[in-house]
Amino acid sequence: MKRKITLKQIAKELDVSISTVSKSLRNSPEIGEETRLRVQAFANFYHYKPNNIALSLKNRRTKTIGIIIPEIVHHFFSTVINGIEQVANENGYNVVICLSDDSFDKEVLNMELLANGSIDGFIMSLSKETQFKGDFHHIIEVINQGMPVVMFDRVANEVICDKVIIDDKLAAYEAVQSLIDKGRKKIALLTTADYLSVGKLRTDGYIKALLDNELPFDDDLIIKIEDVDTCEIIIARLLEDKAIDAVFAVNELFAVTCIKTANKMGLNVPKDLAVIAFTDGIISKYSTPTITTVSQSGIKMGNRAAQIIIDRLESEEDDEEETYVTEIIETYLIERESTN
Amino acid sequence: MKRKITLKQIAKELDVSISTVSKSLRNSPEIGEETRLRVQAFANFYHYKPNNIALSLKNRRTKTIGIIIPEIVHHFFSTVINGIEQVANENGYNVVICLSDDSFDKEVLNMELLANGSIDGFIMSLSKETQFKGDFHHIIEVINQGMPVVMFDRVANEVICDKVIIDDKLAAYEAVQSLIDKGRKKIALLTTADYLSVGKLRTDGYIKALLDNELPFDDDLIIKIEDVDTCEIIIARLLEDKAIDAVFAVNELFAVTCIKTANKMGLNVPKDLAVIAFTDGIISKYSTPTITTVSQSGIKMGNRAAQIIIDRLESEEDDEEETYVTEIIETYLIERESTN
Repeated sequence: MKRKITLKQIAKELDVSISTVSKSLRNSPEIGEETRLRVQAFANFYHYKPNNIALSLKNRRTKTIGIIIPEIVHHFFSTVINGIEQVANENGYNVVICLSDDSFDKEVLNMELLANGSIDGFIMSLSKETQFKGDFHHIIEVINQGMPVVMFDRVANEVICDKVIIDDKLAAYEAVQSLIDKGRKKIALLTTADYLSVGKLRTDGYIKALLDNELPFDDDLIIKIEDVDTCEIIIARLLEDKAIDAVFAVNELFAVTCIKTANKMGLNVPKDLAVIAFTDGIISKYSTPTITTVSQSGIKMGNRAAQIIIDRLESEEDDEEETYVTEIIETYLIERESTN
Repeated sequence: MKRKITLKQIAKELDVSISTVSKSLRNSPEIGEETRLRVQAFANFYHYKPNNIALSLKNRRTKTIGIIIPEIVHHFFSTVINGIEQVANENGYNVVICLSDDSFDKEVLNMELLANGSIDGFIMSLSKETQFKGDFHHIIEVINQGMPVVMFDRVANEVICDKVIIDDKLAAYEAVQSLIDKGRKKIALLTTADYLSVGKLRTDGYIKALLDNELPFDDDLIIKIEDVDTCEIIIARLLEDKAIDAVFAVNELFAVTCIKTANKMGLNVPKDLAVIAFTDGIISKYSTPTITTVSQSGIKMGNRAAQIIIDRLESEEDDEEETYVTEIIETYLIERESTN
């Protein structure tokens, strides 16, 4: 018996990308005819079977939900998974998890792996690379074949499906507003260098809060950090040169590094510098001083994502005109020592 | 088409435990004949199919490794998974993860789910409940059917398979010895209340280090913590009553809580109290002061576990007398501010 060939092996053999193979097998016009036919012929010869989800969906239920997340050493994603597990288990569903490692290729491979009969539907958050590429064919394909997908946190407008998100712009706005309410006037933003949907929205919220309060907006106070291990120097320069009195950081690693740097320079947090972090994780809870954070409500996000997909899987209707929901989970500020 | 019935559904219908169903279907003499026959008849009626791994193993390779871990919001397990992913991906293997939530039943269900054709082998760490029950039939069964299992960290002597562990006793011994070398004489142990193999071994290492150095062993200095959120009071009492000069904590949450409590009481860490934590996570790296830790080398553990299972899967031999390895990953002390 011949072993089943995978997308990855086809890509390697023909020296093309996984995306090219995947699209060729779906007859995508994006791929030139020659390549397309070559991939199809090769796949055919080796009996490659693409997902035939639609054929089997009606008759089988695995009672299993597949989750694809970008990374695992990440408190937010871990809490979302716990939230999904809670509701899934209550409803008799199993959960299997795959990691994309923020890679587009791995995301495509994971979807291929799980969609091939192991699961009933996906809950997923996009890899950075997928967001950057803007290539969502693998997700759209699965949806078109009738398998429900719920996206959370890192979602794409281009994909029409159920989504569970927070209002990143509003959450950032409220965090910055709370700093302004406490009398802070020169507030810096520590953000990531990569262009993710959520990073952009948080920046928008930061800027809007400044403008609404008629505070000057200074581009030099938006610091894009490439690498958390070397960002101390950049933060030290910011603290030295700019005489800021508050920082809004898009994650807790930036926030805690900022606090440590400030302490080394003899600044007192929160007296000289107030700090708020996006995402409530364990660092914020256990650092000295403890850090005020925007709670992303990972558990609640997971609960809702699981409930939405289970409702879809168990609804008897076979409605042609589906209406998808985008559910916005409320965020709130957890006040701790770094601002009070 | 009838939906496939699961172990869980059979257990629920017959009002018996999942373990009873699982063992009855395997004709285990542990289960009374009446129950066994009743379960078998019911399963038969609903066309329940137990894993027929042995039948299919020779002919198919999914190139997928299944991981079962107790929990996900846990830095150590996350790093092991990253380590597994690295080696798996280099070798063209996919990885799927299931969580047992430290529940025996979920561990059994996860194994049933994945062993049913989705994966080629397991890498797993036992749930607390499984360790407590001492019931490993679900793992032994899978191994007997010819599917390789590699256990890591929380392993069982009763299961004969490849294992990747650290020497918990030696690692604890070395940590306590390093405190003694720094002149500390009254060292407390903060440990967990539950009886896990690793907790026991770390306690043994702690005691041995004291005895080898002819330091008095005081049972009152071994504090078993049930709940990290309420342990501050217990730690405060320890610091007040016992005039200790060092603490060895079996995890970083206990360590950071101890440091915070000491600070509140006006004690200086490390001057008045040196602290070492088992497991190197992000809290230790970012707390103030930073915490000296025993590195469990999660990445390396994951790397080795993946390599061992891939070697087994790809070896051509069909050796009847298999020899299993127990690989011990070296630990080392990461010296930080809490001891220096």
